[in-house]
Amino acid sequence: MSTSSNRPIILATNDDGITAPGLRNLVEAMREIGDVVVVAPDSPQSGMGHAITLHHPLRLDKVEIHGESLGYQCSGTPVDCVKLAVNQILHRKPDLLVSGINHGNNSSINVIYSGTMSAAMEGAIEGIPSVGFSLNNYELDADFTAAAYYAKKIARNILEHGLPSGSLLNVNIPAVPLSDIKGVKICRQAMAKWEEKFDERLDPSRRKYYWLTGKFVNNDKGADTDEWALANKYVSVVPVEFDFTAHHAIPFLNEWKID
Amino acid sequence: MSTSSNRPIILATNDDGITAPGLRNLVEAMREIGDVVVVAPDSPQSGMGHAITLHHPLRLDKVEIHGESLGYQCSGTPVDCVKLAVNQILHRKPDLLVSGINHGNNSSINVIYSGTMSAAMEGAIEGIPSVGFSLNNYELDADFTAAAYYAKKIARNILEHGLPSGSLLNVNIPAVPLSDIKGVKICRQAMAKWEEKFDERLDPSRRKYYWLTGKFVNNDKGADTDEWALANKYVSVVPVEFDFTAHHAIPFLNEWKID
Repeated sequence: MSTSSNRPIILATNDDGITAPGLRNLVEAMREIGDVVVVAPDSPQSGMGHAITLHHPLRLDKVEIHGESLGYQCSGTPVDCVKLAVNQILHRKPDLLVSGINHGNNSSINVIYSGTMSAAMEGAIEGIPSVGFSLNNYELDADFTAAAYYAKKIARNILEHGLPSGSLLNVNIPAVPLSDIKGVKICRQAMAKWEEKFDERLDPSRRKYYWLTGKFVNNDKGADTDEWALANKYVSVVPVEFDFTAHHAIPFLNEWKID
Repeated sequence: MSTSSNRPIILATNDDGITAPGLRNLVEAMREIGDVVVVAPDSPQSGMGHAITLHHPLRLDKVEIHGESLGYQCSGTPVDCVKLAVNQILHRKPDLLVSGINHGNNSSINVIYSGTMSAAMEGAIEGIPSVGFSLNNYELDADFTAAAYYAKKIARNILEHGLPSGSLLNVNIPAVPLSDIKGVKICRQAMAKWEEKFDERLDPSRRKYYWLTGKFVNNDKGADTDEWALANKYVSVVPVEFDFTAHHAIPFLNEWKID
């Protein structure tokens, strides 16, 4: 990569695919603060969690539409995109990795299922300051203006201050106009969950199949959670770590004397 | 489900697929302590992380081989298997969820990419005492005897003592004979990582494709890690949590004053 001097190199990816409006909005915002390289999935990858592609070869292709370069598309998952970008395109760590803007919420337990956040987590594992952005809006014509505005603000702060070792940011933006957003709250992940239902149907051969559906249930009443922030029109920022150890549980287990 | 009285109901799943020898060994061990229901992927799902299937319908079928019921196979990911098992088969929470025995290591950072561990994590999110087992052996004819022995011991302890709320167990077994294993160590996740390489090739049409490869690098020298335990012939037990919040990073971020 040849880049202009002193401007940070920003790797942009997502899980909604390279043509998604959320990515386009994110890239436009990031171009104001750095040189942006896009490596994104060639098709939507929502719900892919931290999947990697082990048993299929991966494709990586430059994409141009009407003469404008969109970057690179990859046949794999968001995590594959990050690995390929660092190893095959940049040949160095970018100064910042931004993932999103996801078209839909990734607060609370959704961080675990989210392809957007898994790309950011992969960046953090590789030692790159990384952040995922998600807009809490599922409408087809969702307005990404406020999300892009806060993405730029937060990206600038990460470039200026860095992030504590081993952590990344999960940023969710409420689905309200920019002027109605009250500010930014640093939060913890709300202990909410999905209560699944499966929609059982019969195919034309009379064989059963199932669609996953469900509703999100938040019994965590804390005012320090991402859910609280979003419900109160704040942008939620949760620092996330990839040390999954439940350190507090170690003394309890040491009492078992399993041998 | 009709089950005999007082015996715990144990849900068994994996990511290597319903015909994998590791699952068969696990089920045999679990049958000595409870009534086992198997719901596993119909094909290998290694590296699937916490993926869920949102955009395809799921299939769920009973499997019999030579008149012996193997349980249910599901067309989705390990996480889909857990969701379907609880909602469509058991219609209640099992007393224990066991995932594995994975044919290969899931210690350290591998917990993040692992389908075996994502199934256990999904169980924990649903409030089920859950554990994933992995054998640190990649040979085709790997011997699961020691792994099954410790799986039974640890499963009994979970049923007796329970697990702290919000946590599950990641158990890895070293690839040595049972008699050489020195015991069980409660550990933290080692801060190791993969250094990826992509093997770049040309297909018959002269288009590039890539295979993901890489080597595992552990610069974490702590004697309290899962990597240390395995290297020293101990079974490693890491308590894992699905609150990914980096709580220690919150004060740092609060000093940013982003608004």
